Amino acid sequence: MYTMFSDTIAAISTPHGKGGVAVIRISGDDAFKIAEKFIFPKSKKSFSEIKENSVFLADVKNAEGKTLDESLITIFRAPRSYTGENVVEISCHGGILLTQNILSAAFSAGAVQAGPGEFTRRAFSAGKLSLTEAESVIGMIDAKTNAALTLAQRGVSGSLTKKTEKIYGDITAVIGNIYAIIDFPDEDLERMTHDGMVEAMDGIIAELSALKDSYRTGHAVCEGIPTVICGKPNTGKSTILNLLAQNERAIVTDIAGTTRDVISETVVCGSALLRLSDTAGIRESADIVEQIGVDRSKKEIENSELILAVFDTSRPFDDEDEEVLALVEKAEAEGKTVLVVLNKSDKEKHFGEEKFAGYDVISLSAKSGDRAALSDKIEGKFISGDIENSGEEILTNARQYSSVCECLASVVSAKYALDLYGDDIAGTELERAATAISELDGREVSVDVVDHIFHKFCVGK
Amino acid sequence: MYTMFSDTIAAISTPHGKGGVAVIRISGDDAFKIAEKFIFPKSKKSFSEIKENSVFLADVKNAEGKTLDESLITIFRAPRSYTGENVVEISCHGGILLTQNILSAAFSAGAVQAGPGEFTRRAFSAGKLSLTEAESVIGMIDAKTNAALTLAQRGVSGSLTKKTEKIYGDITAVIGNIYAIIDFPDEDLERMTHDGMVEAMDGIIAELSALKDSYRTGHAVCEGIPTVICGKPNTGKSTILNLLAQNERAIVTDIAGTTRDVISETVVCGSALLRLSDTAGIRESADIVEQIGVDRSKKEIENSELILAVFDTSRPFDDEDEEVLALVEKAEAEGKTVLVVLNKSDKEKHFGEEKFAGYDVISLSAKSGDRAALSDKIEGKFISGDIENSGEEILTNARQYSSVCECLASVVSAKYALDLYGDDIAGTELERAATAISELDGREVSVDVVDHIFHKFCVGK
Repeated sequence: MYTMFSDTIAAISTPHGKGGVAVIRISGDDAFKIAEKFIFPKSKKSFSEIKENSVFLADVKNAEGKTLDESLITIFRAPRSYTGENVVEISCHGGILLTQNILSAAFSAGAVQAGPGEFTRRAFSAGKLSLTEAESVIGMIDAKTNAALTLAQRGVSGSLTKKTEKIYGDITAVIGNIYAIIDFPDEDLERMTHDGMVEAMDGIIAELSALKDSYRTGHAVCEGIPTVICGKPNTGKSTILNLLAQNERAIVTDIAGTTRDVISETVVCGSALLRLSDTAGIRESADIVEQIGVDRSKKEIENSELILAVFDTSRPFDDEDEEVLALVEKAEAEGKTVLVVLNKSDKEKHFGEEKFAGYDVISLSAKSGDRAALSDKIEGKFISGDIENSGEEILTNARQYSSVCECLASVVSAKYALDLYGDDIAGTELERAATAISELDGREVSVDVVDHIFHKFCVGK
Repeated sequence: MYTMFSDTIAAISTPHGKGGVAVIRISGDDAFKIAEKFIFPKSKKSFSEIKENSVFLADVKNAEGKTLDESLITIFRAPRSYTGENVVEISCHGGILLTQNILSAAFSAGAVQAGPGEFTRRAFSAGKLSLTEAESVIGMIDAKTNAALTLAQRGVSGSLTKKTEKIYGDITAVIGNIYAIIDFPDEDLERMTHDGMVEAMDGIIAELSALKDSYRTGHAVCEGIPTVICGKPNTGKSTILNLLAQNERAIVTDIAGTTRDVISETVVCGSALLRLSDTAGIRESADIVEQIGVDRSKKEIENSELILAVFDTSRPFDDEDEEVLALVEKAEAEGKTVLVVLNKSDKEKHFGEEKFAGYDVISLSAKSGDRAALSDKIEGKFISGDIENSGEEILTNARQYSSVCECLASVVSAKYALDLYGDDIAGTELERAATAISELDGREVSVDVVDHIFHKFCVGK
């Protein structure tokens, strides 16, 4: 775990671009010492005299003593700051060149460039927020829909951290009990009975299972569902793609220069995001989809979680359709989600739902544009409950999900071990479970994991 | 002049995009009343109890009471704020959707969307800054080179405002004297003599002339010089264009989404900007330039201020060259700046400088890439003095220049009128001069002019 940061870091925290105001943040032990070299309060007070959490006007100068800007400065003293360190925030005029020059002045005075997410990483290291809370901060910045924003906000509020702390506490209580039994078998300690331990573990299993299940929703809302539209030629796949692409609300992902990572083209179905393609835009993929033969579909289906299997009911069900159905059957067997779309319902029907027993089927005419029914159907397959108003903890990324799965598997093993192999094996399994859940909120986590998480941040956060 | 603003305005003041921090600004009489409806300080204090210029943590909620963010809030009480009004600044997490939601919450609470530059416009109306200072604020945000930034910073510091106030004072002193002579011819007032008035006007004329001349530099640095490269085919115009386009430093204009207005492709020559084309990019214009015949050149020259006339000395001087030279002669007669470029100096020379008596000539081989000499030559034709270190007031836009020219013309007329037509005509001319100089810093200015200036701002400033 990170605890030592020797450098004082600086970065432009506001988005890159022309704007009225920009904020440059400096954080570290030497933040005030560095700031005093290039920030000159109008009041002539020294930084040690200035009250924390107060805003004051100052001249910001470069190394040659030239005034770059008259800025508003705010100082926060450790540990009462975002990072837990001494922090100076410069709120300056928002020109691109001007903000770069001010940042350069901070570097000349001794600060070093902050890496992506480094302010938040320091906050994490100072115990200001847990790893899941830090991830939620990214979630808030990245949110493309109000549902995603809601889940991120809930994460920032710390409810998932509290939940995992409770589970961790429950697990360690059972571990403590087991070791008490092993180490002090004859002591007359107040301890859980065997049944009590089983009951405690059942409770933990139920809580972990609920968390595990919540990821289906969290994944659909925050990460998006890799989706493929398949079907033989001329069933109307492109029309369905275009239908879905007509979002009810603006998607805010496609602003040039704001995203560092390549994001799939996303389509909003209620609270759920569908990721329709990895790199190509919707127009391009529309062409691609049109060309998809059965071979191509196979590969696409492999990489997807949701399959929209399109059949044209205005023509007889033929061998090609049969092949598509076989692919879909295989996918469903592998646990993928399938929605059968019977298209061209405005024309004479040659076949109907009877061909798709056991499947979720929607009948529509993509051409006449009934988006709502399709969108609701898709959303309903992933989103459970009322996201806005339920206060339930929801896992929002694969890392969290994998920790919870690992923890759950270990507790389940522990429960069986208790009966089959004895207390010590159960104890070992529970310790594994405790480690897994600790990784979730970052109490025990490797440098690599932390690196990976914070590199998703933008510089300046 | 604007004095009354009934609405309380709000806008996102930081650039649009993903970033760690965004700032939302609310300004107006009701700023605190509106803020109290959706910003809830953690301290539970009311806004009236909170100290100005202090930063505090608060929950920002939407109209339904859902917490959108935990933000840092700063309040400024009128008149000690940027706008001179009550101001609330929300420093929140920087997501695009999140900031939009917080802005919407401000609207729900009663604020209205701020127009472009409306915060600064209110600051101007409150007498917080003059019109030239406001223009310098735009200049700081828009600056593409350090020289432009330096001039904008000097403008913000108010030295031009002080200079124009002094000139205004000098003019009104003479006016007062003239009216005293006219109205109270027999009173024994202490007054300037006729020679004293002439001397005063000579002083004013000298100061205005210096300001007028400074615009050549200010225009080149801040607005850029409309430039055309002309010459007969195959003289190397494109090569020269490409040579100039290899800027020594990055130009920061071409970040997608950050500029609202279409800016010409600019090339930096030291402190001077050349605007090489109105809409087409450099690559495109390279092709266009290659095709330019004499007819086309005529039109281009008409719209330009700087003409780079290119001749290929490796071939004999012919009729086509003669035609170009005739065009250039006409342009110079019209006051345009001409630089004769003798290209292909690496090859055998068929003619030389003798053909261009009275012109500024540079001899080079564009192909072998001697950019510095050409750049220095161009810069020297526009930039006078050491911009970084001279403290001289410099006019930076056409509006300022036109006010100064008008003022200067009126003072010159007044001086002659004093001898030729009598005191009353001189007084009228000086009043015209006083009005013109008042327009410069905005003491007397029409709503249309103010509208025009502030609409160049971004929203949120």
